[in-house]
Amino acid sequence: MKAVTLNFTTSSKLKLEDVPVRPLENGEVLVAIKAAALNHRDEWCRQGLYPNINEGVILGSDGSGIVEEVAEGIDLGWIGKEVIINPAINWGEDQKVQSKDFQILGMPRNGTLAEKVIVSVDRLHLKPKHLSFEEAGALPLAGLTAFRALFYQGQLKSNEKVLITGFGGGVAQFAFQFAKAAGAKVYASSSSEEKRNVAKELGAISVYDYTKEDWVENALKESEGFDLIIDSAAGDALNNLINVVKPGGKIVFYGATRGNPSTLIARKVFWNQIKIIGTTMGSDQDFEEMVSFIKDHEIKPIIDHVFTFEQAEEAFDRMKAGKQLGKIVLTP
Amino acid sequence: MKAVTLNFTTSSKLKLEDVPVRPLENGEVLVAIKAAALNHRDEWCRQGLYPNINEGVILGSDGSGIVEEVAEGIDLGWIGKEVIINPAINWGEDQKVQSKDFQILGMPRNGTLAEKVIVSVDRLHLKPKHLSFEEAGALPLAGLTAFRALFYQGQLKSNEKVLITGFGGGVAQFAFQFAKAAGAKVYASSSSEEKRNVAKELGAISVYDYTKEDWVENALKESEGFDLIIDSAAGDALNNLINVVKPGGKIVFYGATRGNPSTLIARKVFWNQIKIIGTTMGSDQDFEEMVSFIKDHEIKPIIDHVFTFEQAEEAFDRMKAGKQLGKIVLTP
Repeated sequence: MKAVTLNFTTSSKLKLEDVPVRPLENGEVLVAIKAAALNHRDEWCRQGLYPNINEGVILGSDGSGIVEEVAEGIDLGWIGKEVIINPAINWGEDQKVQSKDFQILGMPRNGTLAEKVIVSVDRLHLKPKHLSFEEAGALPLAGLTAFRALFYQGQLKSNEKVLITGFGGGVAQFAFQFAKAAGAKVYASSSSEEKRNVAKELGAISVYDYTKEDWVENALKESEGFDLIIDSAAGDALNNLINVVKPGGKIVFYGATRGNPSTLIARKVFWNQIKIIGTTMGSDQDFEEMVSFIKDHEIKPIIDHVFTFEQAEEAFDRMKAGKQLGKIVLTP
Repeated sequence: MKAVTLNFTTSSKLKLEDVPVRPLENGEVLVAIKAAALNHRDEWCRQGLYPNINEGVILGSDGSGIVEEVAEGIDLGWIGKEVIINPAINWGEDQKVQSKDFQILGMPRNGTLAEKVIVSVDRLHLKPKHLSFEEAGALPLAGLTAFRALFYQGQLKSNEKVLITGFGGGVAQFAFQFAKAAGAKVYASSSSEEKRNVAKELGAISVYDYTKEDWVENALKESEGFDLIIDSAAGDALNNLINVVKPGGKIVFYGATRGNPSTLIARKVFWNQIKIIGTTMGSDQDFEEMVSFIKDHEIKPIIDHVFTFEQAEEAFDRMKAGKQLGKIVLTP
């Protein structure tokens, strides 16, 4: 089968090559991929930013497809089913946090940027009928992360005011759509005017350019503070978030693309009873609830662009440049 | 009546003087104080560290006593009752956070370091029978802060592992006692060998000297990480706490005596799904639950020393030096 693998000898660090399909083991199924999607994680693997990166691995955490083959003992009814794949492997029993055995599909295990992928049958969910394969394939990792951040960690209630920072990235767009669907009042920030305009079109009450010095002041004036902020930047901007979150409010962050903050205004955090909450991916329960939520509210992921596997380098470079608005999808 | 007031002309910044008792207003009661207790807040008022400090105010947030007089319309049954006073005024309706009108008894309003204090009748709770006036007077502010930190913010469950940092201070000792009573496995840290020994005697599973470089390593080895940490220091030590809290665990802090941390290891916070939660004092609901808890478990506050009002300077200096283990009580 054709697959996009990590290869440190090519200039793109990627290689479209023929890879043999290994036999299924107990509990496994073979899914013919119809659409895969990129996450920052894939780009960071390409850049070698994770420990123990194994060259030759098939990248890709997100995928949708059709079940082609099942291991002995698995219900044959799965064959031919249209599915999406939960890329969170071995989360474990604790809803609070992943176990030590937790893995993400697409490094170290072979992922979805291939004509076929092998996963445990318990990673399969039926594809919501209102979604195309491209839309369904765009959902898993970012949708799961956004859902857990908003609802399990953020405990979002309808009518609460939510700020989504860095609008345009995959998790941020899902967080925006989910929060809207849940009846929250949604605000967004981005350094890109184009992305701010899209957020407005999608129903943001207000949008902010976080590169402007007065954005905190303006946001406080307009919103009177946010009940919940969903962020992936951290860095020194975290203290701006502490200043625009409502007393008693929450800042949930799932990344630290701007690194560690160089201070934390501790007195404000304790006196205003603010919660700073780290989150990552989600449990099986979160995934199941996310899929139900998507169906109930007929949410469609925003697709930035659909590439073929042959265009993988272009797709990765677009992710790296942060130009995308919505998910970058690849099809075999 | 005699009262300890804030006075910037004396060397001690305190003055024991005669102050007239004003008439009661609607909803108020007059309590004859039997015992008052000090908090760091009183010392910080003495040092002028709060904005809008009014000279001449009677300090003191903690007190127990006997109701002597009630305003018209209030149940006369209160007269003669032995009570403790909830020093949290105007918390408001939101369990998550105090309102903008929130005040603490003993600045700007006259407090408990006096023969008599005037408070709203809704601040009164019957003194638990198993407590002396000295013990009951030691309870309110620190007990309330500890109770909210552990149970509302920290959501402590029995058998969870809790680390109480800076053992010896008022809130820390209550947090220690409450957590033990709730069936948690309690650990403590202190820079003082004497205080660490007391924590051991009171049933700490292990104690740590946080001035030693290897304490984080040792604590991790012995505890395999804490589910909950109760802290009032913040500062750079916050990152040590991030290293010893269990993945999915909580760090609840109610002060920042060491100031702002100079960094925050953000990646660890989000990947380990850690919650950093600020807290302060507590709501009326927290206070009521705290008093019930104290009664149910027959908890007795640890008293460091009982001084008279005449010895106020000595009492404040002991608090300032951090020598106390338990609460510093003053009686008229």
